[in-house]
Amino acid sequence: MVDKMIRKIRQTNAPIVVGLDPMLSYIPHHIKRTAYEEYGETLEGAAEAIWQFNKEIIDKTYDLIPAVKPQIAMYEQFGIEGLKVFKKTIDYAKSKDLVVIGDAKRGDIGSTSAAYAVGHLGRVEVGSKKYAGFDEDFATVNPYLGTDGIKPFVDVCKEENKGIFILVKTSNPSSGEFQDRLIDGKPLYEWVGEMVDKWGEEHMGQEGYSYVGAVVGATYPEMGRILRKIMPRSYILVPGYGAQGGKGKDLVHFFNEDGLGAIVNSSRGIIAAYRQEQYAKFGAENFGEASRQAVLDMIQDINQALGH
Amino acid sequence: MVDKMIRKIRQTNAPIVVGLDPMLSYIPHHIKRTAYEEYGETLEGAAEAIWQFNKEIIDKTYDLIPAVKPQIAMYEQFGIEGLKVFKKTIDYAKSKDLVVIGDAKRGDIGSTSAAYAVGHLGRVEVGSKKYAGFDEDFATVNPYLGTDGIKPFVDVCKEENKGIFILVKTSNPSSGEFQDRLIDGKPLYEWVGEMVDKWGEEHMGQEGYSYVGAVVGATYPEMGRILRKIMPRSYILVPGYGAQGGKGKDLVHFFNEDGLGAIVNSSRGIIAAYRQEQYAKFGAENFGEASRQAVLDMIQDINQALGH
Repeated sequence: MVDKMIRKIRQTNAPIVVGLDPMLSYIPHHIKRTAYEEYGETLEGAAEAIWQFNKEIIDKTYDLIPAVKPQIAMYEQFGIEGLKVFKKTIDYAKSKDLVVIGDAKRGDIGSTSAAYAVGHLGRVEVGSKKYAGFDEDFATVNPYLGTDGIKPFVDVCKEENKGIFILVKTSNPSSGEFQDRLIDGKPLYEWVGEMVDKWGEEHMGQEGYSYVGAVVGATYPEMGRILRKIMPRSYILVPGYGAQGGKGKDLVHFFNEDGLGAIVNSSRGIIAAYRQEQYAKFGAENFGEASRQAVLDMIQDINQALGH
Repeated sequence: MVDKMIRKIRQTNAPIVVGLDPMLSYIPHHIKRTAYEEYGETLEGAAEAIWQFNKEIIDKTYDLIPAVKPQIAMYEQFGIEGLKVFKKTIDYAKSKDLVVIGDAKRGDIGSTSAAYAVGHLGRVEVGSKKYAGFDEDFATVNPYLGTDGIKPFVDVCKEENKGIFILVKTSNPSSGEFQDRLIDGKPLYEWVGEMVDKWGEEHMGQEGYSYVGAVVGATYPEMGRILRKIMPRSYILVPGYGAQGGKGKDLVHFFNEDGLGAIVNSSRGIIAAYRQEQYAKFGAENFGEASRQAVLDMIQDINQALGH
């Protein structure tokens, strides 16, 4: 799956991923109105609005991008109805040949971590049958519990030809509270990065990159430069571009010299583009077109910064 | 809700929580047979088997215990059908007046962490209405992302009178890889423990305990002793008793001198008791009775160790 992601990045010349993190406040009124007319102001109504919103954004951008990253929290907040739309969104994105990164930040130990891995990336056994629960291509994983938490994911990834991105240095302001603390002279995120490199050895793709990637925030480009070297074979998923303040020029250090090695996420900056002054001319009715233009602008910004 | 938990612990004289972490392999054949006859070897069939299993265990133990802790991974692995049973189990346990700790180990930042908090502990707004998604009483949370990840949970807890348990020192063998590393002479878990104490200040119950608890594994009693002092007002959720090797005598240090301050989890040791030699006499047909006896034995073991 890391090979497919690389192939799609080359095809589109766009090392980017669109974060499908729909908040109801991002969704244009006409979409919500139609959904509430059919289902009422209910969890089903909210889920229907999210689905129509996601579908339009995928329809208007899928030919430009290699991947989408639905953030499961934004669906889970609506309970079962929300999670049905999470699944529906995954399936629809895959039907458009997009790589799907489930941003779940799961992490537990032993058989419990294995259950998460099976539910998101693998297939669960029921008697003599096997079923995929959510069936993303990649999932994000939290490293706080150590190898016991990661190994079950890697095992499932090997079976299913899928991958993970492990949180190393997150994009938020307080990420340094624990992640930046020095241990034997090196910050915790570097220790985690070294483990990511080691975990990845076990499961390499054919393009020189492993199935075990890392999350490193665009908001910390200097740390990105160091982590790039510590984990040369890991793809870096880079959140924090756009709305969180990361700029195209900050991203250079996250890439390898082969021009690969990083995939940059933008969520709000793309999916709620129509609410920005820059794209207001599209109007709420044409929010999908606004998202398409925002994707085109993001690709240009990044490729300019990379000198492509 | 921490006050309700304390009241129920006093009533039952049982500082324990039953972990509802059903693996299909734990579920007696007669339950699975009936479920598969009705729904086939499908995700629905698996979910039905898990539901019947959970219901019987709750029915046979609810009068002895203050709380249950469903592990969401074990449901999430069956996709939507599994999560429906997670919700059904929460609702049923609450109808029996049990405190429900959702073991979700969620953690993200800002509005995303808020979405998890809302989905598990709060109510989400849909137009002019509000709905609870999963509606647990407590959730477990991962601290790796720092205050930005925790604060949105605490905010929802304040609104809803609910609580969280933050992972501090987990019970697994490799938990030390990052958690034990020394930072300015102190292990990371102590730094996290200090933050738990600080985060808890903001939301105190009436019994002297905060709504922000901690997870500390029974397998590390010496660390439990130190963390007990660092977080005197935090309830400690203690996994790792029983199947993972923690013994009653190891638990003493997790409690305060008031006899409160800790709640000990057992999952497999209770819910799959009928498979142990000690409880084999009950037979698979009476697995609920075996679980009841295992609960009684656990209560006795812990109270003996505590000198109650």
